[in-house]
Amino acid sequence: MTGAPRFDARFRAALADLIAWRRDVRRFKPDPVDPPMLERLLDLASLAPSVGNSQPWRFVTVDDPARRQAVIADFTARNREALESYASERAQVYAGLKLEGLQVAPIHLAVFCDQATPQGHGLGQRTMPETLRYSAVGAIQTLWLAARAEGLGLGWVSILDPQAVAQALDVPVGWEFIAYLCLGWPAEEHLDPELARHGWQDRTALSRKVLKR
Amino acid sequence: MTGAPRFDARFRAALADLIAWRRDVRRFKPDPVDPPMLERLLDLASLAPSVGNSQPWRFVTVDDPARRQAVIADFTARNREALESYASERAQVYAGLKLEGLQVAPIHLAVFCDQATPQGHGLGQRTMPETLRYSAVGAIQTLWLAARAEGLGLGWVSILDPQAVAQALDVPVGWEFIAYLCLGWPAEEHLDPELARHGWQDRTALSRKVLKR
Repeated sequence: MTGAPRFDARFRAALADLIAWRRDVRRFKPDPVDPPMLERLLDLASLAPSVGNSQPWRFVTVDDPARRQAVIADFTARNREALESYASERAQVYAGLKLEGLQVAPIHLAVFCDQATPQGHGLGQRTMPETLRYSAVGAIQTLWLAARAEGLGLGWVSILDPQAVAQALDVPVGWEFIAYLCLGWPAEEHLDPELARHGWQDRTALSRKVLKR
Repeated sequence: MTGAPRFDARFRAALADLIAWRRDVRRFKPDPVDPPMLERLLDLASLAPSVGNSQPWRFVTVDDPARRQAVIADFTARNREALESYASERAQVYAGLKLEGLQVAPIHLAVFCDQATPQGHGLGQRTMPETLRYSAVGAIQTLWLAARAEGLGLGWVSILDPQAVAQALDVPVGWEFIAYLCLGWPAEEHLDPELARHGWQDRTALSRKVLKR
């Protein structure tokens, strides 16, 4: 019990700012990020909660130009398919959106979940095996907030074929693809989401989301 | 660009403490949590990232004693099955673990993902429909950190049958169960995970988790 930190109102106000200003960033400056900063962020992400303390998150930094190009090519193809799936007016809005920062972001970070990990000995996964993947997602949100506290922006790209990414990055068998993250210094900063600002989807009223039972 | 907050080294150090001391809490004091505090936490959770800005998280506060009892009964049955699935030595350790704080935690909060939401118009979900559920997980980790900053503890119970919980809580069709959370004032605080302290699964070295490609 001793040694547990107490967080004050000033910290909580700054944390609320951090959460509000987290945002998905797709417009980056090309400036590099110091490797020790990325290591610190990955260390913090690895303190996320995990089912049975399984710690199933696996990170892949993608620097090889050919591998990056393979990921970009997959995004381009999947994004074209997505555009074609929308009817006229929506398609026009969709075509105008900037959905990723793959060309400029200095860091490409892929996140996988090791479905075969013996860690955790299956605790908590029996009825909800998906909690192993959810653990990797908790690590991503932790990384996202820690990155923003450094002034970095992060963008999550999901318009990708998971098999194509796993193949392009040659990851071990049993690693399931969770997310492809662009990380770097943001060229712009906003409090409102990019997709709200560009007419795709507004934020909804918060009060509608709680049921009492 | 104007108005974006800058976070200093002192804040980052406190954030790192927060992330490290987040912990899954299963030992609660029975003291109540002020309703406005829970509302603030849910507002912050609702600022989490979501695919296509779909905001699919749905929160259910469970106060009805019969509904709480139904959830506890399901946990008890599923936990017995889990115990029976382990061989002798592991089973002994498992039997000694405290895996939830359902009996004492003042707040029971179930989190669902609205799979039928039209919000986001499907953007980003075409090749990875699971990102809708992942969005709800990001909201949980945001809530968890914000709760810890208030001195609250949170425990995630996954030893439950998702269908049984959805039925016990009578949620709308299309809501998929993501997590059952216990929230309240912790009776103990620790830097090390409960499951490491009680011999189930240690934390692993952080350096093993990054592949370079």
